[in-house]
Amino acid sequence: MAQPSTPVSPPLKDELDIVIPTIRNLDFLEMWRPFFQPYHLIIVQDGDPSKTIQVPDGFDYELYNRNDINRILGPKASCISFKDSACRCFGFLVSKKKYIFTIDDDCFVAKDPSGKEINALAQHINNLLTPSTPFFFNTLYDPFRDGADFVRGYPFSLREGVPTAISHGLWLNIPDYDAPTQLVKPRERNSRYVDAVMTIPKGTLFPMCGMNLGFNRELIGPAMYFGLMGDGQPIGRYDDMWAGWCTKVICDHLSLGVKTGLPYLWHSKASNPFVNLKKEYKGIYWQEEIIPFFQSLALPKECTSVQKCYIELSKLVKEKLGPVDPYFQKLGDAMVTWIEAWEEHNNPLAQAASKPEPNDKKDKPSAKSK
Amino acid sequence: MAQPSTPVSPPLKDELDIVIPTIRNLDFLEMWRPFFQPYHLIIVQDGDPSKTIQVPDGFDYELYNRNDINRILGPKASCISFKDSACRCFGFLVSKKKYIFTIDDDCFVAKDPSGKEINALAQHINNLLTPSTPFFFNTLYDPFRDGADFVRGYPFSLREGVPTAISHGLWLNIPDYDAPTQLVKPRERNSRYVDAVMTIPKGTLFPMCGMNLGFNRELIGPAMYFGLMGDGQPIGRYDDMWAGWCTKVICDHLSLGVKTGLPYLWHSKASNPFVNLKKEYKGIYWQEEIIPFFQSLALPKECTSVQKCYIELSKLVKEKLGPVDPYFQKLGDAMVTWIEAWEEHNNPLAQAASKPEPNDKKDKPSAKSK
Repeated sequence: MAQPSTPVSPPLKDELDIVIPTIRNLDFLEMWRPFFQPYHLIIVQDGDPSKTIQVPDGFDYELYNRNDINRILGPKASCISFKDSACRCFGFLVSKKKYIFTIDDDCFVAKDPSGKEINALAQHINNLLTPSTPFFFNTLYDPFRDGADFVRGYPFSLREGVPTAISHGLWLNIPDYDAPTQLVKPRERNSRYVDAVMTIPKGTLFPMCGMNLGFNRELIGPAMYFGLMGDGQPIGRYDDMWAGWCTKVICDHLSLGVKTGLPYLWHSKASNPFVNLKKEYKGIYWQEEIIPFFQSLALPKECTSVQKCYIELSKLVKEKLGPVDPYFQKLGDAMVTWIEAWEEHNNPLAQAASKPEPNDKKDKPSAKSK
Repeated sequence: MAQPSTPVSPPLKDELDIVIPTIRNLDFLEMWRPFFQPYHLIIVQDGDPSKTIQVPDGFDYELYNRNDINRILGPKASCISFKDSACRCFGFLVSKKKYIFTIDDDCFVAKDPSGKEINALAQHINNLLTPSTPFFFNTLYDPFRDGADFVRGYPFSLREGVPTAISHGLWLNIPDYDAPTQLVKPRERNSRYVDAVMTIPKGTLFPMCGMNLGFNRELIGPAMYFGLMGDGQPIGRYDDMWAGWCTKVICDHLSLGVKTGLPYLWHSKASNPFVNLKKEYKGIYWQEEIIPFFQSLALPKECTSVQKCYIELSKLVKEKLGPVDPYFQKLGDAMVTWIEAWEEHNNPLAQAASKPEPNDKKDKPSAKSK
């Protein structure tokens, strides 16, 4: 084949931000350099804001610590968790791009069964740019992959699919287990490479993990709120689960798709199961009431935007889950605060009103690449 | 490791029948000999009953042709299709075993990516003997496989799962495409080995293919009716789809599980797309009304057995699909006839009443292994 006369630009280079929550130096980026370097990074520094996070040379980034979050959001900063990776959703809010990929800093490049390094970001982009099929199951998995299609018996009227809002990737090596399973199976490693992407059917909930996640910010961004976790909260490690339940019911309501499967990355380090148990134990019993709540809830027809859905959901959370624990009253309020903050930073009219000076530095990160 | 002192018996050897519909000599069994020989085969000969079907030596089988079906079922034989692989369900009816594996005679042993021959039957048995998880999606697929488990966020109350009624296997090489897709992609082959088994979530329909299918006859047998297809009918190639829609809504109603994925077999020969188009074209537009019908139907609480569900379903088919085409009136009647025939041959009381002589030969096949 002839060489292209101009170099091929990485896909969505100017339309995607990579969001990384962290408390440490980002050496892990070295391994991702061939895949991530063309993209812009938004680093959300958790914990002590006086600590300096080292970012390897050559990456284009902006970094926000807790002082930045407080300055930029003011009183609304209360909706952003502290000392928990839930803080990553601040990065979703300040991004100006259409797509987000978010990854944990203990995740490395995995290899496929042929030994080839997996470009996880490219696979997420592919997942997000091809339709989803939530209304009927295709037994050969994603019909939009090369070499696959809809099988006999798949209704033709459903073959256009719907826009994909979320791409949920998986992990080789350390599986994403809860503390009880970690304690029972300390040595279990995931070595099974399942070469599939699939749509999670409409009406089915799934446990969304935030370690390796892509989404279309325009389609679902305002619902990608990671809740109140960590410092001062009675619960941790349910930030991504919360976002998964909320986004899935909203995607179902708005006929948007959620895919799971490829890409894999290499999850290097199991977190401490004793610490995890302390963070999780309320979630483990609360989820027995939360999940039936999400499974049975119906959003009214009037909810025609993600924001409207999310505000409605916040009311239902307070009404139906409030009796489970006062925490859910607080969470319901935080969901509203989050939407207000989102609107302020993403709605041009609201933004203009709140920013009288064109050179206002209020939104700027405290560190960025030169 | 030490050798076991007695040979290990093949799993479910005396509890499973292999049902094969065919019009030709069964040379394909040679390749399956290492896996199938310990099991009993029920061969349903389609088409001309005067033709003799050769079965390789050493297999334990009984063979039924159309004359046998007519003799055994009498006037109720009208519910068994002729000149269509839908006739296989007669084998499900006369089996006395708990489990069925059914396979097409153009399907051979496939190899996994390591080059090892796949024992499809053993994988189906494994799928059927482990629970299903239809109420919540597990992102690492079947949590009952070695090296896998439920991931973080999976409700503990749902981890026991439910009994598995159906195991739907897949095909390498020739994919199971409809005629239009065959015509558009004549050269497409399925070469992607997806190393996964998963439960199809509650409320989600799928296109069930009869080529490579296992099920628990005690749990779902009476609903595994393959409809009216082929000779004298306006439609073909929708026999397994029909059974798939009916069994899935009944499994959902009765909290039974349906799995899909492994095992693969090697599907050797694409059927003629022009012939297929003729058989399928009514199905292709009818399914646009049939699928919404199945998606929206609700079985009443009083339907506590598969038989009761199926009779109720037959009424709904006549009422709701009858207006689509008179064929569905006939099909609704055939569904009732099928259940009557099933009861007669599987309900000991009904059987005793209809069989005054203990040595009655009425049910015997016309050929069997010596």
